[in-house]
Amino acid sequence: MMTSGGKKCSSMRLRYLTQKEAIALDEDLFNEYKFSVDQLMELAGLSVATAVARTYPAATHPSALIICGPGNNGGDGLVAARHLKLFGYNVSIYYPKRTPKPLYENLLAQCLAFGVDIVEKLPPPKELCNEYQFLVDALFGFSFKPPVRDEMKPAMDALIDAGLPVCSVDVPSGWNVEKGPGVIRPLRPDMLISLSAPKMCAAPEFILGAKHFLGGRFLPPGIIQKYFLRLPDYPCQDQIVQLSC
Amino acid sequence: MMTSGGKKCSSMRLRYLTQKEAIALDEDLFNEYKFSVDQLMELAGLSVATAVARTYPAATHPSALIICGPGNNGGDGLVAARHLKLFGYNVSIYYPKRTPKPLYENLLAQCLAFGVDIVEKLPPPKELCNEYQFLVDALFGFSFKPPVRDEMKPAMDALIDAGLPVCSVDVPSGWNVEKGPGVIRPLRPDMLISLSAPKMCAAPEFILGAKHFLGGRFLPPGIIQKYFLRLPDYPCQDQIVQLSC
Repeated sequence: MMTSGGKKCSSMRLRYLTQKEAIALDEDLFNEYKFSVDQLMELAGLSVATAVARTYPAATHPSALIICGPGNNGGDGLVAARHLKLFGYNVSIYYPKRTPKPLYENLLAQCLAFGVDIVEKLPPPKELCNEYQFLVDALFGFSFKPPVRDEMKPAMDALIDAGLPVCSVDVPSGWNVEKGPGVIRPLRPDMLISLSAPKMCAAPEFILGAKHFLGGRFLPPGIIQKYFLRLPDYPCQDQIVQLSC
Repeated sequence: MMTSGGKKCSSMRLRYLTQKEAIALDEDLFNEYKFSVDQLMELAGLSVATAVARTYPAATHPSALIICGPGNNGGDGLVAARHLKLFGYNVSIYYPKRTPKPLYENLLAQCLAFGVDIVEKLPPPKELCNEYQFLVDALFGFSFKPPVRDEMKPAMDALIDAGLPVCSVDVPSGWNVEKGPGVIRPLRPDMLISLSAPKMCAAPEFILGAKHFLGGRFLPPGIIQKYFLRLPDYPCQDQIVQLSC
């Protein structure tokens, strides 16, 4: 899937993280490197919003639905929703299982203050295209293990059956973090933004033609060494880098 | 100082905040809009690093000294130091009065983990140009009231007498937030990045020919209305907008 010699796409061979490595790397950032979740979620969510806005311009794709899960992936989605609103989009979020932690409650309050709409009940998937031009999948991240629980099935159905372009955050929801889609009717995102470093399911043989970005420009050299990462250079001051076109 | 019709510079008439308004606006962001300091400092520091990198490219200005004060302005400087390191600069910080709060201790730990150098004692101002190509002034922000305390004088002397380009963060240090330079030998920054909204001292009659940016793209509509702000549009997904060239 990598292009070679393209100006916008990095053609380097990446290293893809196992689920265990992704979890350990994340813990290192907080425990050893003293980052707060607030800090990194803000940068991650900004990366997501930036990659989405470059791919789906507001002029042609004015309205987005962000589907947020209960964990940090959903938190990235809440941050992205706020930044997308600042970028000029009409933004709605579907956030069926809210985590009663101050961080998430505050991120949601910020969304509301910025005029993000909350969708309490999803319409049938095929009707989503009447209101939205694309979906952001911030449902499950690198700590997900199948199967999808019943209460999350409407969200998965929306992502799979709406017929709208989908941008997945870090891991396409419902996928095995290492083995990729692997179910009968998997989500097939049009775009994936890996955060900090790509996980195994982001390899070209799994994501097929999806546009692939890397975001979360915050890894210290010690992490890059410890996990033997090979990461492309981010251009200038950009918070994202495009990996495949 | 405003240019009109320029592509890169906004020519709109801004509203400049009083010190009291700046303090109240900041409190609103945390109390009413539920932002954490970590979140907004991360975005503010990223704005600073981005504006600096656009003004002083690493190819011609590879080494920066960031002078950090004890408060939130210094915290913005610590965040900017880390992002500048990620942007490829050699970065040193001078941080003479450290605040024993976890947020600041963690920001400093992050700087160290990224290879930012700590300068314990400043050389004479005229010798700074042997090691650095520009300085970032993150000493005092919008809550500063003159005079400068003795322990901060070496930092002020460095900023004023080094003969190096200086980028001031939000408020040029030592200035009256509303009345501008106003002292016998004021700091004259080459560049100013106002955060969230410009303060009165950022008016063209005070900053004279300094390049002026706005950063901190995080104000909710309720704040813009409450403080009657007139802010330029940020271009695309940029975290900064240039106000004067």
